Amino acid sequence: MGEFELIARHFTRAAPPGGAVVLGVGDDCALLQPTPGHQLAVSSDMLVEGRHFFAGAEPEALGHKALAVNLSDLAAMGARPLGFTLALALPAADEAWLAPFARGLFALADAHACPLVGGDTTRGPLTISITVFGELLPGHALRRDAARAGDELWISGRTGEARLALALRRREPWARGELATVQDRMDRPTPRLALGQALAATAGVHAALDVSDGLLGDLGHILKASGVGAEIGMNALPVAPALSALDEGPRLDCLLAGGDDYELLFTADASARKAVLSAGRRAGTAVARIGRLTRTPGIRLLDAAGRESPLAARGFDHFAN
Amino acid sequence: MGEFELIARHFTRAAPPGGAVVLGVGDDCALLQPTPGHQLAVSSDMLVEGRHFFAGAEPEALGHKALAVNLSDLAAMGARPLGFTLALALPAADEAWLAPFARGLFALADAHACPLVGGDTTRGPLTISITVFGELLPGHALRRDAARAGDELWISGRTGEARLALALRRREPWARGELATVQDRMDRPTPRLALGQALAATAGVHAALDVSDGLLGDLGHILKASGVGAEIGMNALPVAPALSALDEGPRLDCLLAGGDDYELLFTADASARKAVLSAGRRAGTAVARIGRLTRTPGIRLLDAAGRESPLAARGFDHFAN
Repeated sequence: MGEFELIARHFTRAAPPGGAVVLGVGDDCALLQPTPGHQLAVSSDMLVEGRHFFAGAEPEALGHKALAVNLSDLAAMGARPLGFTLALALPAADEAWLAPFARGLFALADAHACPLVGGDTTRGPLTISITVFGELLPGHALRRDAARAGDELWISGRTGEARLALALRRREPWARGELATVQDRMDRPTPRLALGQALAATAGVHAALDVSDGLLGDLGHILKASGVGAEIGMNALPVAPALSALDEGPRLDCLLAGGDDYELLFTADASARKAVLSAGRRAGTAVARIGRLTRTPGIRLLDAAGRESPLAARGFDHFAN
Repeated sequence: MGEFELIARHFTRAAPPGGAVVLGVGDDCALLQPTPGHQLAVSSDMLVEGRHFFAGAEPEALGHKALAVNLSDLAAMGARPLGFTLALALPAADEAWLAPFARGLFALADAHACPLVGGDTTRGPLTISITVFGELLPGHALRRDAARAGDELWISGRTGEARLALALRRREPWARGELATVQDRMDRPTPRLALGQALAATAGVHAALDVSDGLLGDLGHILKASGVGAEIGMNALPVAPALSALDEGPRLDCLLAGGDDYELLFTADASARKAVLSAGRRAGTAVARIGRLTRTPGIRLLDAAGRESPLAARGFDHFAN
């Protein structure tokens, strides 16, 4: 176990002063002191080699991404990060892997004042399990079940680039472009923490989630939880330059069903439109209004003339093949 | 993913009313409302098949143990459980495994009012990663660095039976006895939550941890963190009936270096002796005074006449072979 104690030390750093951490790594538990009157937000994600990332994936990017996908869950709730735990199974203690992994992990943690407070290291197939803790004011959480018919539907940033990067890496026949222009969108997703917190503090913003499995699929989670439907104006979808070289079918698939985007999909009362744009500006993150919620269940994709698109019937199954 | 959504539903239960859970499984994050003025205690442990449990281990016991070892960390801090997350990698969605695993997990969770609030399920080599959250009053935590020279050293319950169970299962040559009498001490450890909370509320109780790697090894963590040494009266160690059939060497090895005990090892001012015994009675857990802390570093094992035992020099390396 000496080898693994060495690894554990690799991940043991003093918690930054002034934060919520009363006691960090090294005891039976970490101790956190949340801000009085706040609720705690908690999320866990597990990444397994060969399933969530390629064997041999670049460890610095992996360290970033493992924490980013967890922070993205805090962002989607509107919570401010307090800290995280890391449980790590490794086939061997390989410094050449550990050092860049820790570098990528801690760079993102430091950028969001989210210290590592505890965890576990063991020998096993490469598996990264992170639990993040955040805090927010009661009633401020952006829940999936809070959307209302009539709400406007918004998306942060742009979707589809991570899916294009995956396709370029896999040399899928429909993919066009340079991997380098979109690779970071797959390997180093940006958790929209500042935007999530700004939206949680904005009256009239109702529901949110982070898009990890594709815009339409994740939208379905909000619609189901809230008992509403949605119309999306396809011309309103923000399109990254890298996607404009694609044929229309693959482009729409990337935009609507790509996955791994970690953008925030959220709903807000029409009266909050200016406040939402202002929240986006304060957070430094673009936000685009892409549709609205309806009493009628289901998702309707509308073309520029407001007609329902036959594309919806195709089921966005390019990627199933 | 339909298969894994099925599994996820297997682990989705409504949070009990009246607890800390504002929002349970199903959104980007769970939301918890800790008691005002309390601190949060957090711990993560990961169990990997083939390393922490045998391939083919009985899934109900495994569900119990995976949560028990985490709850034991809360107990060692003196915290009251609020909830836990479960990240689970599984080679396949096998109902014959999942149902008993969930039964063992939830039976223990329910017994301690510690609901599952979130998590992640994925395909991969069998890996169980649990993070528990608890709460306690500021200043009450039983930290490893709080022991003082002159403190009396205490242990809950009895150590060594889990190690004997492992030896009987492995048919190690020194092992004697019936596996059935000690098996539950290995497979279904009891987290000493009531005792930990009672001790945390007892003035004069200073440091604590849970014994997972053997009494002497874990005591070393307290001594190092607190800058003290210890004397242990070997005759004061509580000995389970199952261990009395062993030769003296293996018996002491089990008692002092067995591991997997999940008993609380703690220190308290001599003036707190009666209060400690009272805390044990209130918690329904036996506590035994086994030694005291010294200014001199290191651990000295004393025989009935108070002489330092030569056994210490052997290094307790039976298990290393």
